Amino acid sequence: MPAPATFLSYIDDHAEGFIQRLAEAVAIPSISGNAAHRQDVFRMGAWLQGQLNILGVQTKSVDLGRHVMDGQELPLPPAIFGRIGDDPKKKTVLIYGHYDVQPAEKSDGWDTEPFKLVVDSTSGRLIGRGSTDDKGPILGWLNVLEAHKSLGLELPVNLRFCFEGMEESGSEGLDELIASEAAKGKDGWFGGVDCVCISDNYWLNTRTPCLTYGLRGLAYFKVTVSGPARDLHSGAFGRSVHEPMTDLALLMSKLVAPDGTILVPGVDEMVATASAEERAIYEALDYDIKDVEESAGAPIAISSDKATVLMGRMRYPSLSLHGIEGAFYGAGAKTVIPASVSGKFSIRLVPPQTPDKVEPLVIEYLKAEFAKLNSKNKLKIENLHGGKPWVADHRHWNYEAAKRATEAVYKRSPDLTREGGSIPVTLTFAESLNVNVLLLPMGRGDDGAHSTNEKLDRSNFIEGSKLLGTYLYEVGADA
Amino acid sequence: MPAPATFLSYIDDHAEGFIQRLAEAVAIPSISGNAAHRQDVFRMGAWLQGQLNILGVQTKSVDLGRHVMDGQELPLPPAIFGRIGDDPKKKTVLIYGHYDVQPAEKSDGWDTEPFKLVVDSTSGRLIGRGSTDDKGPILGWLNVLEAHKSLGLELPVNLRFCFEGMEESGSEGLDELIASEAAKGKDGWFGGVDCVCISDNYWLNTRTPCLTYGLRGLAYFKVTVSGPARDLHSGAFGRSVHEPMTDLALLMSKLVAPDGTILVPGVDEMVATASAEERAIYEALDYDIKDVEESAGAPIAISSDKATVLMGRMRYPSLSLHGIEGAFYGAGAKTVIPASVSGKFSIRLVPPQTPDKVEPLVIEYLKAEFAKLNSKNKLKIENLHGGKPWVADHRHWNYEAAKRATEAVYKRSPDLTREGGSIPVTLTFAESLNVNVLLLPMGRGDDGAHSTNEKLDRSNFIEGSKLLGTYLYEVGADA
Repeated sequence: MPAPATFLSYIDDHAEGFIQRLAEAVAIPSISGNAAHRQDVFRMGAWLQGQLNILGVQTKSVDLGRHVMDGQELPLPPAIFGRIGDDPKKKTVLIYGHYDVQPAEKSDGWDTEPFKLVVDSTSGRLIGRGSTDDKGPILGWLNVLEAHKSLGLELPVNLRFCFEGMEESGSEGLDELIASEAAKGKDGWFGGVDCVCISDNYWLNTRTPCLTYGLRGLAYFKVTVSGPARDLHSGAFGRSVHEPMTDLALLMSKLVAPDGTILVPGVDEMVATASAEERAIYEALDYDIKDVEESAGAPIAISSDKATVLMGRMRYPSLSLHGIEGAFYGAGAKTVIPASVSGKFSIRLVPPQTPDKVEPLVIEYLKAEFAKLNSKNKLKIENLHGGKPWVADHRHWNYEAAKRATEAVYKRSPDLTREGGSIPVTLTFAESLNVNVLLLPMGRGDDGAHSTNEKLDRSNFIEGSKLLGTYLYEVGADA
Repeated sequence: MPAPATFLSYIDDHAEGFIQRLAEAVAIPSISGNAAHRQDVFRMGAWLQGQLNILGVQTKSVDLGRHVMDGQELPLPPAIFGRIGDDPKKKTVLIYGHYDVQPAEKSDGWDTEPFKLVVDSTSGRLIGRGSTDDKGPILGWLNVLEAHKSLGLELPVNLRFCFEGMEESGSEGLDELIASEAAKGKDGWFGGVDCVCISDNYWLNTRTPCLTYGLRGLAYFKVTVSGPARDLHSGAFGRSVHEPMTDLALLMSKLVAPDGTILVPGVDEMVATASAEERAIYEALDYDIKDVEESAGAPIAISSDKATVLMGRMRYPSLSLHGIEGAFYGAGAKTVIPASVSGKFSIRLVPPQTPDKVEPLVIEYLKAEFAKLNSKNKLKIENLHGGKPWVADHRHWNYEAAKRATEAVYKRSPDLTREGGSIPVTLTFAESLNVNVLLLPMGRGDDGAHSTNEKLDRSNFIEGSKLLGTYLYEVGADA
């Protein structure tokens, strides 16, 4: 069931108004990670709730309690629930988005004021904090609602909304809320939901729309080697005591090889090698070694084979060394023997890996390697936090609908991708509601979501709004 | 020629007055490393010059110019030169000391006010910043001068003094001053100097006086691995690019073994193994594994063999890893791939090693090890600073005089020690004046020179003053 031509024309004809609404949203600096902006996050939540109400959506602002940030007790921004449509003959789609943003100061290196949306008519870019992460996609849904209300068109599905204001700061309280709401079954706000759609990630490149069906999990470790009771002078103690940094450098060197191979026995082995058929998926993606090198800003791709690089990011685990706590980290020269040093590293996980399965392998291995050093220092290993990986069935009707919608709007098939990072709420929805979850990105790979000069291309905002609406029609056609 | 009994009695009889003078000196917070205290350093220099003048010493305050500290241009505290005696039949001894101190705040963990000398009559400790480093030893020389002036005794040697006020902050300007003064030959303040005596280090333990005849040198390196143009997210880039931390951890792990062996080929090999005879010197020192473990605050001695531990500190080179600049160093968890990371390490040198000889070995080795990694990241190696080691002939009459003086005052032979750290001015005197330099410590190994609750034992102050005076008589006897 293609989207009606009147809907598509409406989006084109009202583009200027939509951009104006995006400018209004960007102008509210809803930075969840800065206590001084907490009232702005509340203001943004109220603005969004008002917009939904105007467009006929029944809403509820859910208090998530209080939390402590920067030593200050603060009220948490509410979750905004919404519902429109209750036709038992229609599918019910749950939409997730977040109305908070990353911090931004012009002095960080922005070319323009971050909280004033700048429309660059030459490049076609809409520049401003939150333009692509995640105000643009949220407003894409508002555009769809407005078109249907104005044109008097019936929505092809029932819609439920879950918008949060703490995504950039750990989504505090959300997991519990989703779980408890889901537990209410039919009577809850998520009752009868058939599938979930999240628009909060990006195309792999700047050219090709994609659907994302996997995210890596994470297991973050802290390995501490302690020796002397206090920092020592390397002149007075060098070569007369066991130095914690010597032991730690050796342990950290045993974790991962320069080619990315994880050296902790059993971790890489847990993941099946890609079959020729699966490899072909990566070979077919619209992607080039140059893309990763442009993103990284240097010719440091781990391989010259495109599928190897893509699978390294998407379907294999990775181990990164982040740094050392407790050692000398300043500029200049200091001749210290640090008393206690903690190496930080994390493993990005893919199915069937989980933090629980990986942790004992890491601990056992580090203990065994430390024993080989014959050091009199002490070893301690902690798992700081973690999350499971997520992979959805991309043959599900939810994905099929999104594929047809992409083909209708962009005249090409979407790339099927997995992401190297995590969006924890994805797994929460999948596990709490036991339905298929789709990641349907609006923006491009170079949008700079957490960086300076964040932008959303005008064409991605407008065609993306058409895509979201068309996707609903394709889901509806499946009912 | 033993010191006259009247001199020794005078020191005993005037102990309370000497302690009162030390209290006056400690009360001036002459912290050279804190711009807010610069005037106090000047005040301390003027106080010292006044004391010398009262005791009959001709002095000169030498302007060392200005420098920049903490972004502020400041005048450097002067060097105080002094001379007393010009008898061509006598030996001429040059005395060095410093009148500035390390920072100290009660809130650092002091039990008492750091700049108020506390006399603990139970423990016999004189507690206060600068008590042992280096105001106590400087005042020891004043005590000797006072005794001779009051008793109408002729000094057994001609004395020259060189006191500085920037020792705790890099001795700015001093090397150049010493070199230019030495170049004046007979007409300079150091003209005719036969030997140098520095009292600015410590006994190896709390029991046995020592003479120190060696100091290690230093070569400090920074090895930088750079990859991406900016820090990357480990989710998006893990296992798709070469990570600088992976390469750096591997390089740092190749530098030194947990047992202290330096793995850079040619560095350990440059130093001859100790002969049985030399080993016997270390076996004979009044020292126990427990001493190093008490100082370090943990049972982490590199060996259970006493001579191995002592030689590790004194007569072999050591390599210590100090930390990493550019990596994540905070508490908590951050999933960053740092763009550029710099490992800091230094090698303590012993003869015949010099920074110039060691540097090419380190650079060549690190380049070769990096090449083995097949990484596309970039490597850079810098030698941040360095200094040559120093070893004096401990059979020289200067040392023989100090041995006899120690035996006379303490009724036991001094230990002959080398120190693991550096006192750069030692080498400057040795090379500029081409005379024997003696390190003759007054305080004990547990004085806590740069730490909280710095102290000098009353007995070390009083017997130490006798030692300094007796040493001058023993040098004089050699004329």
